[in-house]
Amino acid sequence: MDSSIKYCSRCGNHVSFRIPPGETLCRHVCDQCQTVHYQNPKLIVGCIPDWQGSILLCRRAIEPRSGYWTLPAGFMENRETTSEGALRETFEETGAQVEIGPLFSLFNLAHLNQVHLFYRASLVAPVFGPTAESTEVLLFEEAHIPWEELAFASVRETLGRYFDDRRANRNTLHQIDLDPVQESRAKSLNSRATG
Amino acid sequence: MDSSIKYCSRCGNHVSFRIPPGETLCRHVCDQCQTVHYQNPKLIVGCIPDWQGSILLCRRAIEPRSGYWTLPAGFMENRETTSEGALRETFEETGAQVEIGPLFSLFNLAHLNQVHLFYRASLVAPVFGPTAESTEVLLFEEAHIPWEELAFASVRETLGRYFDDRRANRNTLHQIDLDPVQESRAKSLNSRATG
Repeated sequence: MDSSIKYCSRCGNHVSFRIPPGETLCRHVCDQCQTVHYQNPKLIVGCIPDWQGSILLCRRAIEPRSGYWTLPAGFMENRETTSEGALRETFEETGAQVEIGPLFSLFNLAHLNQVHLFYRASLVAPVFGPTAESTEVLLFEEAHIPWEELAFASVRETLGRYFDDRRANRNTLHQIDLDPVQESRAKSLNSRATG
Repeated sequence: MDSSIKYCSRCGNHVSFRIPPGETLCRHVCDQCQTVHYQNPKLIVGCIPDWQGSILLCRRAIEPRSGYWTLPAGFMENRETTSEGALRETFEETGAQVEIGPLFSLFNLAHLNQVHLFYRASLVAPVFGPTAESTEVLLFEEAHIPWEELAFASVRETLGRYFDDRRANRNTLHQIDLDPVQESRAKSLNSRATG
């Protein structure tokens, strides 16, 4: 139940949290027009922008995790594909143009109702810089990745597996379920690094 | 713009379709409490239930595409992973227990604001039957797949590629963008078959 859903977006009347006719789960249902307001997981799409073996990271200018480093990624919008979303988010956060390659990793964060997708990608040119969403945008060689200042567990897992696969000359899709413990482990790493 | 969104689900006041402060796209924004009501693509998760080389299909009892055959699949719910969603949908639509394997195909249907995921899967036992969502549930060998009575283009593409890969002994992830023309081609095939 999402306690912020109190009114029907279609007719403005009150909603109840109950099982609609013919279904098995509780939903937010309008008491007046009977519209069922479904809540579903959201997709976060991003990429691993590679330029001659170095990876483009951005330091977040906005919450959540402002000040920490991340791969460019964000909420997928209606009317775009997953690759188009990854391309758009990369440009918005880094100013860089990329070519999106195959899917590299798929994360389930069931506790957050999120699915994260990261694509392999190549920078078209080493042109990038700070944006409204990123205070710094920089290329990092593997040895200089700020492992203890990464914003999200899915970013840390993606980068680690990317470099592992490169060493092993592997090309596999990584499917990972992340739970709250793994998420908070990322944050305690951060606390040690920055506290 | 979604014309069915007229009221704020949080406070019940009217919403406008406008660009919120600090953003670049129009959203449904509450005129009173300023809540931004984002609309995002939805995930449909399903599987290819294999039993000794035959595939379990279900004939849809409900719209859309009632009466046509499909792989078990449906909207992913909050608080579950993509694999758990595929498992749940398979049980709801076919009564069968499956073991979910690796991701097989990812479809973007940007015109419908949908992403479809199909997983490889194995039936735990050949136990299945009609359900509230399916009038018939049957195992089909490749030679007997009802190609001209399939409900959705993503199902047809998934089945075709699954059998192609089996012949070629390949194990790849298929990433496909489907446009409205490909969707309607599936339906005209149906019209020829059933008209």
